[in-house]
Amino acid sequence: MASISRLQADHYIIPLPQVLEDSMHGAMENFEVITARVTDADGAEGVGYTYTCGVNGGAIADILTREMAPRVAGRDADLIEAIWKDLWWACHYGGRGGPTVMALSALDMALWDLKARRANMPLWRLLGGYDPRVPCYMGGVDLHLSPAELVEQTHRNLEAGHRHIKIKCGRNALREDVARMSAMREAFGPDMPLMTDANMKFTVDGAIRAARAFREFDLTWFEEPIPPDDPAGHARILSEGGVPLATGENLRTLWEFKTLFDSKGISYPEPDVTGCGGVTGFMKIAALAEAHHLPVTSHGAHDVTVHLLAAAPNRSYLEMHSFGLNDYIETPLTVVEGHVTAPETPGHGVAFDWDKLEACRA
Amino acid sequence: MASISRLQADHYIIPLPQVLEDSMHGAMENFEVITARVTDADGAEGVGYTYTCGVNGGAIADILTREMAPRVAGRDADLIEAIWKDLWWACHYGGRGGPTVMALSALDMALWDLKARRANMPLWRLLGGYDPRVPCYMGGVDLHLSPAELVEQTHRNLEAGHRHIKIKCGRNALREDVARMSAMREAFGPDMPLMTDANMKFTVDGAIRAARAFREFDLTWFEEPIPPDDPAGHARILSEGGVPLATGENLRTLWEFKTLFDSKGISYPEPDVTGCGGVTGFMKIAALAEAHHLPVTSHGAHDVTVHLLAAAPNRSYLEMHSFGLNDYIETPLTVVEGHVTAPETPGHGVAFDWDKLEACRA
Repeated sequence: MASISRLQADHYIIPLPQVLEDSMHGAMENFEVITARVTDADGAEGVGYTYTCGVNGGAIADILTREMAPRVAGRDADLIEAIWKDLWWACHYGGRGGPTVMALSALDMALWDLKARRANMPLWRLLGGYDPRVPCYMGGVDLHLSPAELVEQTHRNLEAGHRHIKIKCGRNALREDVARMSAMREAFGPDMPLMTDANMKFTVDGAIRAARAFREFDLTWFEEPIPPDDPAGHARILSEGGVPLATGENLRTLWEFKTLFDSKGISYPEPDVTGCGGVTGFMKIAALAEAHHLPVTSHGAHDVTVHLLAAAPNRSYLEMHSFGLNDYIETPLTVVEGHVTAPETPGHGVAFDWDKLEACRA
Repeated sequence: MASISRLQADHYIIPLPQVLEDSMHGAMENFEVITARVTDADGAEGVGYTYTCGVNGGAIADILTREMAPRVAGRDADLIEAIWKDLWWACHYGGRGGPTVMALSALDMALWDLKARRANMPLWRLLGGYDPRVPCYMGGVDLHLSPAELVEQTHRNLEAGHRHIKIKCGRNALREDVARMSAMREAFGPDMPLMTDANMKFTVDGAIRAARAFREFDLTWFEEPIPPDDPAGHARILSEGGVPLATGENLRTLWEFKTLFDSKGISYPEPDVTGCGGVTGFMKIAALAEAHHLPVTSHGAHDVTVHLLAAAPNRSYLEMHSFGLNDYIETPLTVVEGHVTAPETPGHGVAFDWDKLEACRA
């Protein structure tokens, strides 16, 4: 047992190398990273983080510093479930979602990193261990690209080792989405796993219409056709549209996933470890998916999530997408033939370049 | 049309006159108030606020100042729906609940106050107008009181004009809850409307057991028996327990209410204007309740909420409970025979004592 001596939160605003665009968030010029560093009484450290599209990072850092740091000081760092539950309830009124859960996710990740480092084990082994070689896909934020640019981008991604590709959809006219998919199938054949992501752009009936138009492209999944608040709508889109559905990056709790599972409107749950309650939340959602006979995929933070999918027997593809965070960590994952391999270094193995981050401090 | 020239947020931590206790939040020694003041180009002002049990107020103020203020500057203050929707989506990733919605609620309240003041109308008339004389109940935070102390407190509340009383439940042994209700019925007879509030203490089966034990006391409602994340659990408690259920203070969106309504596990929805999306959110939830043939009650912030229930034809009791905020506003509502009357002053009419608040600045 080693008690927590310190929780330090830091807030960074990082410019994107190029402006990105999807259907609902519009143009994104920067993203935020909020780190949580836990130090125990022996001086051992665990690192966690969360990120945003550019909004709410200040609130997340404030919650970590003002509300959570004093409440975890002196506690046994091994008792992550106890800390998680106590913080959940301490922050429940005014919490229970949003920035509070993202702060909790970052802290939880740091505690798991610390635990794994102290055990001298990579996180994926500590969590149970399944298979370190994890299939992954490239998640493009590319709604602004023309079909030709999309094909060109995909060629670059294939050269970089990718074999499974997701593109955005949700342009003004459905035929534009269809033209983009058509160009992709024409250029790369019918067998390349291809997903699409609408970022909640559609109405339910609009999504059904789109799914039917997308059917000929044999998509692996159609992601976030609508906002996550309508479980019955998801069920209709799945059954009437006839294309597997992925969703979950905007769900913040195990119970939100449970409600969506109950509706039978989800094929590929995609929790984000930085926003679903951390490693603790992610692994429970993966288990809930397994209980529902569903695969589990992921959103964002691939450097850490590779460990979680390497520990989950029902894992599907890992999303490779980190905005520009790869440039701020020491050894980014290498994609080989559409797979990445969870490292054998203790903890999650993500080492930030703190000096480089410092220049982006909010 | 007058554009918004300024949004100012302030964060106060206010000591409670006495320590309060419920089943899940434990002892509360202070509460937080976060105010949002909107000024338009003509110099007119609208005031909104939200509050917490002592946690997350810093995050709420940060979101108002850092994320929302720059986004509302220069916008037409009348277009509340447009501002609401744009902020919802701007803050969605990392938002969609928790402190983000509480910040949005405070801002929305300020915009409605401004609109009503400019129209020189009290808010309840502007919103449609139903009946300014609103039945109310006293919501005690009194789990720590013995049955005798509870009776004594209730005598004081009746002297102060109350006729409808809510007490906490969720003590360690169910028979202690029963003893408190029994003492209340013995002292005040079978006809006084009596509610009870568990603050999410129970499991589903524990709540059914409790509801059955409470049946003999003919409660108006049994509030928050379990956390709000289990719609199916609410349905079981209602149908098997046989006591009307109230819940909603921890729901943050219209869609969370919709999911709970769909489960048929709610009798008295109780949105909080400071946490359900503001006046805009509250009135839509009230309309959704009306569509489901349900009354609407409320949680907290009675000074402003009296206007909303004075405008809602399906309104039930207004909760009278503001922690210690009454001491920081100029003309608190007066309870007469279990009713309060929405004022005729323009806007919501809540005037803070800013000098007194200043001493509590966080």
